[in-house]
Amino acid sequence: MKRFIDLAEHTPEAVAELLELAGRLDRHPEPRALAGKVLGMLFFNPSLRTVASFQAAMGRLGGSSFVITPGTGTWKLETRNGVVMDGDAAEHIREAVPVLASYADVLGIRAFAGGIDLAADLEERKFMEMASVCPTPLVNLESAVNHPCQALADWKTMDDLGVPANGGRFVLSWANHPLHLPLAVPAAAVHMAAMRGMDVTVLRPEGYALPEPIMQRARAAAAASGGSLRETDDREEAMQGAHVIYAKSWSSTTHYGRPAEDRALRKKLEHWMVSERWFANAAAESIFMHCLPVRRNVVVADEVLDGPRSRVLPQARNRMTVQMAILHRLLAGGAQ
Amino acid sequence: MKRFIDLAEHTPEAVAELLELAGRLDRHPEPRALAGKVLGMLFFNPSLRTVASFQAAMGRLGGSSFVITPGTGTWKLETRNGVVMDGDAAEHIREAVPVLASYADVLGIRAFAGGIDLAADLEERKFMEMASVCPTPLVNLESAVNHPCQALADWKTMDDLGVPANGGRFVLSWANHPLHLPLAVPAAAVHMAAMRGMDVTVLRPEGYALPEPIMQRARAAAAASGGSLRETDDREEAMQGAHVIYAKSWSSTTHYGRPAEDRALRKKLEHWMVSERWFANAAAESIFMHCLPVRRNVVVADEVLDGPRSRVLPQARNRMTVQMAILHRLLAGGAQ
Amino acid sequence: MKRFIDLAEHTPEAVAELLELAGRLDRHPEPRALAGKVLGMLFFNPSLRTVASFQAAMGRLGGSSFVITPGTGTWKLETRNGVVMDGDAAEHIREAVPVLASYADVLGIRAFAGGIDLAADLEERKFMEMASVCPTPLVNLESAVNHPCQALADWKTMDDLGVPANGGRFVLSWANHPLHLPLAVPAAAVHMAAMRGMDVTVLRPEGYALPEPIMQRARAAAAASGGSLRETDDREEAMQGAHVIYAKSWSSTTHYGRPAEDRALRKKLEHWMVSERWFANAAAESIFMHCLPVRRNVVVADEVLDGPRSRVLPQARNRMTVQMAILHRLLAGGAQ
Repeated sequence: MKRFIDLAEHTPEAVAELLELAGRLDRHPEPRALAGKVLGMLFFNPSLRTVASFQAAMGRLGGSSFVITPGTGTWKLETRNGVVMDGDAAEHIREAVPVLASYADVLGIRAFAGGIDLAADLEERKFMEMASVCPTPLVNLESAVNHPCQALADWKTMDDLGVPANGGRFVLSWANHPLHLPLAVPAAAVHMAAMRGMDVTVLRPEGYALPEPIMQRARAAAAASGGSLRETDDREEAMQGAHVIYAKSWSSTTHYGRPAEDRALRKKLEHWMVSERWFANAAAESIFMHCLPVRRNVVVADEVLDGPRSRVLPQARNRMTVQMAILHRLLAGGAQ
Repeated sequence: MKRFIDLAEHTPEAVAELLELAGRLDRHPEPRALAGKVLGMLFFNPSLRTVASFQAAMGRLGGSSFVITPGTGTWKLETRNGVVMDGDAAEHIREAVPVLASYADVLGIRAFAGGIDLAADLEERKFMEMASVCPTPLVNLESAVNHPCQALADWKTMDDLGVPANGGRFVLSWANHPLHLPLAVPAAAVHMAAMRGMDVTVLRPEGYALPEPIMQRARAAAAASGGSLRETDDREEAMQGAHVIYAKSWSSTTHYGRPAEDRALRKKLEHWMVSERWFANAAAESIFMHCLPVRRNVVVADEVLDGPRSRVLPQARNRMTVQMAILHRLLAGGAQ
Repeated sequence: MKRFIDLAEHTPEAVAELLELAGRLDRHPEPRALAGKVLGMLFFNPSLRTVASFQAAMGRLGGSSFVITPGTGTWKLETRNGVVMDGDAAEHIREAVPVLASYADVLGIRAFAGGIDLAADLEERKFMEMASVCPTPLVNLESAVNHPCQALADWKTMDDLGVPANGGRFVLSWANHPLHLPLAVPAAAVHMAAMRGMDVTVLRPEGYALPEPIMQRARAAAAASGGSLRETDDREEAMQGAHVIYAKSWSSTTHYGRPAEDRALRKKLEHWMVSERWFANAAAESIFMHCLPVRRNVVVADEVLDGPRSRVLPQARNRMTVQMAILHRLLAGGAQ
């Protein structure tokens, strides 16, 4: 394995091997596996789980990490090409990325969507620009429309809980939120569930349909795995027999890059908060997932998050376990 | 040992064992003891000694650390229960704490007093709320009215210097300061010295008496150890034969949560700065202690801090040595 | 080796040994060499390469690091002596430095020039004040007029590329920049190249001559090594037969500490941007060096930075390799 930037670059068999390795490293620690190895992480956006779980994963395998957050203890980085750099930014990513990569055995980069130009974000222009100047194994710590580490953790969480793959019903539901958030997690989740062979429903209000390229990728993954994909704004229909409801807020796609209009739209959508009522016609042991951070009583009611359906804590812990596997595979000379 | 959040949870024998272990690890390093183990630290308030000494302690034992400072590279955390989270905070401590704990073998939390409601602070409501959702061994990195790692370091410092336990005279003196500071260090210091069996005097001006629950705890510790506790505003009387003067500023307790009134009160207290004159009738080898950070020529005169009485540097270094023992005991499967 | 704060404290033979060790550690990793050892770093100024490359260097040798950045997660530090500390700063460097040093096996400090008083900066008053209260091996992570880790990396880069020592022509050229930058890198570079035995030319416009004490040091190094030193504002003459052009902006020295006048001066100096034309009469394989961060199309044109002359990436990577050698020599009990 040379990099981990998109789950779609890996076969289902490779994913299964990673998940098996994750479980093994969790049960049988290897505190010497990555001795002397270094993970560098470059965060253009805030992080809690990612920065903590990657450092923990590296530490558990005996390696070490450094974390760079431009603007916090370091200067701003320029991302545009060809500009005269007489403004705020003291350094260009064309230097910063390969330099940091040269100190590390693997580099992780988090770079959220610009949130203005949907086409640019769907093409992952910013992330791929940095990937193109990174000679070292690269991990995507969340890009404009992808979050493969989260997707892999989600996959493992469902495996751990015995959620059916083929035949399993996975509902990705839009949820209310005061801010217009990126498409990375919904795009990664819908693709992951489709790749896992599940029957996937995207439940969202008008104006929040996932962009067609994202749906298209997921449809292709479903076709290959024996899963299916549909979208609807009818909650009752969506939740019928659901094994998993995966809640997440994201930007309006009809009003992408226009926050004021997006805000006006979601004024009428405050009832898109997951509550116990949503599960009325779901499968008996239906579970609640969310990638966190989650706003209580906006995205989801306390009763769900504090109740027996919630699996957000093991889901978050699996970030660390799958990342141990990713790092081990990238650095300890594993197969593939 | 399952957690280290309050010195009062440990017997004097357990403390003695910790201090012995600290000395041993300092003399005979064990750079493999905690290989693959992870310390997570969550700081709601600034830190210098704590963040550095814990990382150093963990590193000396072969383990690793991650540090989370909400608001610096990560989002703000909500601490109130039942609220609709449509404001600044993107995540609740009910998720953040157990998630971070799940990445770590031991979690440390620093959460200063709210400084508004004395009863809430004395009950450690904020810290205990987080402790209640932390399934992992927990270390108190300073809470509203406690700082057990500092207390343990102070204890070791006096042992190292041969300051008598029973019969030793320990003066905790209030000192001037431009800001109204928390009660954590004075509360921990007075309890520690009482538990060590010393004759403890709290020297403070009117308006700065320690709250009765803090005095009560220290009195109980003194009763068990053969020590004693009294308070006074008479410096000469307090310093009579003192072996240790431990200086620290803290909030007015009669004007708790009312900074302007506190400020007015301390306008007349600028002479509460420890100078060489204070030691006129102290014991011959009387020493000066302070937990640091200390404001020179406000809390204490240069002549004392730069003179032979000052033990603030070995005291600060002992933060690391006792924390090695705490981490070793929590993680390396030691007795107790 | 007891400290690494100035290349001038080391003989050419000691430098050669360090560079040989750097190469060896790069080719033959020693992931156990510094097990249980701790590097502390104190940054008064921002950093990217330094903070990342030192952590990586320490991690590759099996040790660990902690990083303190006053003002980010910790309080401000006072540097003046004898003051009444009733302002912003909660702690004095006279405590902070020895305390952090007591947690570490080696302490690194970055403290840029004050930029007001040239004499004070040339004397390294701030850095030497901190050095004087640091009982632990100390590394200079960039001070007012020195950057020995950068200089050592630059030396290794030229060795790696086969740039001649005696007989090699090294041009340090001032370059345009929107800000008035410190003298640390130019001072260190000119001294390093002279110590390496090269024929050194300082190319700079009127008002930007390096201060005489800096030239004097370099002249002494050149005399000892068989090199030479001159300065000029004639680019064509300077570049004649040059093997290396090392670009860097720095403050006006005739208008030191007067930013507005400096800014007025450099309004007319925008053509001091290195472009391919500069190399017209240079040596055939003439290379471009810069310590980074660099402002594209202000300091240097894209055509040079993206072209075959640029060696800024291996130069930056050598920060890590030489620092492994410095840490190894300071901590692993090597000779000298």
